[in-house]
Amino acid sequence: MYKIIQTDEGVVAANGFFADGVSAGLKKENAKDMAFIFSEAECEIASAFTTNKMAAAPIKHFKAKGMFKSNFILINSKNANAMTGAAGVEDIDEILATLPQNVINPIMSSTGVIGVRIPKQKIIQGAKLFDLSKKEPHNAAKAIMTTDTFSKEISVRVELEDGSVFNMGAMAKGAGMINPAMATMLCFITTDANVDRAQMQEILDEVIVTTFNSVSVDGDTSTNDTVLLLSNSTSGAYDEIAFKEALYAIMHFLALEMVRDGEGATKLVTYRVSGAKDDKEAQKVAKALSDSLLVKTALFGEDPNWGRIASTVGASGAECNEETLSISFNEHCVYDKGRLLFDAEMEEKTAKVMKLDRFDISCDLGVANGKFTAYGCDLGYEYVKINADYRT
Amino acid sequence: MYKIIQTDEGVVAANGFFADGVSAGLKKENAKDMAFIFSEAECEIASAFTTNKMAAAPIKHFKAKGMFKSNFILINSKNANAMTGAAGVEDIDEILATLPQNVINPIMSSTGVIGVRIPKQKIIQGAKLFDLSKKEPHNAAKAIMTTDTFSKEISVRVELEDGSVFNMGAMAKGAGMINPAMATMLCFITTDANVDRAQMQEILDEVIVTTFNSVSVDGDTSTNDTVLLLSNSTSGAYDEIAFKEALYAIMHFLALEMVRDGEGATKLVTYRVSGAKDDKEAQKVAKALSDSLLVKTALFGEDPNWGRIASTVGASGAECNEETLSISFNEHCVYDKGRLLFDAEMEEKTAKVMKLDRFDISCDLGVANGKFTAYGCDLGYEYVKINADYRT
Repeated sequence: MYKIIQTDEGVVAANGFFADGVSAGLKKENAKDMAFIFSEAECEIASAFTTNKMAAAPIKHFKAKGMFKSNFILINSKNANAMTGAAGVEDIDEILATLPQNVINPIMSSTGVIGVRIPKQKIIQGAKLFDLSKKEPHNAAKAIMTTDTFSKEISVRVELEDGSVFNMGAMAKGAGMINPAMATMLCFITTDANVDRAQMQEILDEVIVTTFNSVSVDGDTSTNDTVLLLSNSTSGAYDEIAFKEALYAIMHFLALEMVRDGEGATKLVTYRVSGAKDDKEAQKVAKALSDSLLVKTALFGEDPNWGRIASTVGASGAECNEETLSISFNEHCVYDKGRLLFDAEMEEKTAKVMKLDRFDISCDLGVANGKFTAYGCDLGYEYVKINADYRT
Repeated sequence: MYKIIQTDEGVVAANGFFADGVSAGLKKENAKDMAFIFSEAECEIASAFTTNKMAAAPIKHFKAKGMFKSNFILINSKNANAMTGAAGVEDIDEILATLPQNVINPIMSSTGVIGVRIPKQKIIQGAKLFDLSKKEPHNAAKAIMTTDTFSKEISVRVELEDGSVFNMGAMAKGAGMINPAMATMLCFITTDANVDRAQMQEILDEVIVTTFNSVSVDGDTSTNDTVLLLSNSTSGAYDEIAFKEALYAIMHFLALEMVRDGEGATKLVTYRVSGAKDDKEAQKVAKALSDSLLVKTALFGEDPNWGRIASTVGASGAECNEETLSISFNEHCVYDKGRLLFDAEMEEKTAKVMKLDRFDISCDLGVANGKFTAYGCDLGYEYVKINADYRT
């Protein structure tokens, strides 16, 4: 057996990793807006990117190089370098060419406004402020924030049965445009586990489905979504099951942190869909629920309006019918296979559930055995405020 | 040739149709909440209903009877009679059984809250207030409103080349849950044109695609959407082309009225998508744009944030790429096949466009010749307010 113990070292928890954040004057008031992650030893890399066909320049740059080994990631917030064409990719090459010589195959990652050329000179000057011997994970995590209201970090130490140990740490940014199928989120995970690239990629692909790809803030999928998982193998330790579980713990935690910090969100809701024709149909229903404006505004209004849940299930396209459907708020079943259970007493009970920061909405379609769990949040005035004047 | 002349008689414009609205105490403060449409002569009926699998009792009732001839529609607001199972359908039978004897195969149509049994006695008492000799189309149109802020009516007289004349009139309710593929909307169209049922259904199916199915308020599809088109043939006049054009004029007008009155909406935006692989892909892009929360909140903020348009096009799943895409706000092209044209001057010009009540956003994907036009609105604080406490 193995033990997974939470630590507090963020993205530098693994041996030989360094990180810091600096201000390059991209954000107002000298807020940190550039970060790096550096490993002395070269790393194997697994990756996942947005499905958006307007993928941003950093993603095109990464894919064009086919970079599976690197020891450096340069990250900036405030400008996404998206819709900037070949020039945007050339800008990245020019920026990365100015980095110190001990940097191998550097990677760039960006988030922020779309459709504006990246301020190359500011970024180049900003990168000169990096001190690659620094271990300041909190600074790095702050520097990559956009509309996030808090930084998102986690790390774990994994102790294997044979006494060997590896570490894994991560930072992420989220907030808006979070949607199943990857959305505006950046996540950087580092580890010193001794894992080979192909296996690391396979595990990442598996774990992402039930973590980042099962959360939704507003149903939009961004141009810049990126997950990079770097291993420098320096611990020499590895166990497949333990590695997968540690990665799941980290990605699941960060995915929920993103929803909890969804723009203007006040509630984190878990949608448990079961009894669907298959898992894919359950996922379709869960996504429809977490994306529905009518459901999200009802959550914000703390209104146990189960009729909107039923209507959204029906509109999802999944096989379902009102004779076999059941709906619960936490443990309270409000509709059971055609029976209307939402009397005054039930309304009082479920209204209390709706006032919680975190609760479950369960839908059993009663068709077959497909199931999926998704996470969403409410939508209130703050979301409108944040997004009505994002650029200003 | 023929002439189509707008008239002001709403749903009783056609010969032999009667309508009125009454208060049955379903809404607060004695507001009108029940309406009828009655024709002395029996009518042929064409219909279109929601694609939601939780279709409400009135729709199940209609489909079970296979009613293609009727002379009476009873409509109530405030309660949707949805998720009410077999009992909900039986309630309709009991209500309709109390109507006067000159009513043939009556139809019921409902809108309002989901998941509550319909107040049968109130409705039966309300129906007793109907005076079938009344022609009060404005009362009827008001009675079917829910969160609509204005009633939606239109009528036309069609003069054919041979001197014969037919009339067509309609009323509708819209507001929230408006989405391509039919959404919470009710629309009742009456005509005295001498058209047979099969042809009328075929024409309705064709016209609905570019009218009701191309508008979106919030991307939700309701349990109760209904379009009923009744013809009593009493004019003896008919011409297929003129009929189709008149029906298009009426449905297009009402579709745009619904978007204009979308919950909290302040702007009506026309999304013109061209250059897609085919019309279906163009429709997918147009729907993605009109449904995107990030686009809708940018509209509300009057922010010409074209990057969100580009990102939404890219996330729609349609074939596209940044080298061939072009985006315009009215006549101002802000992005042209890779060229960034959004300088300070352009920002000023497009910011002016965004302040208009009505404008166009055009996206040419530059892939092939598919095209589709959709209509949407902005999303602001009012939408949240209306939907956060709809039931109260």
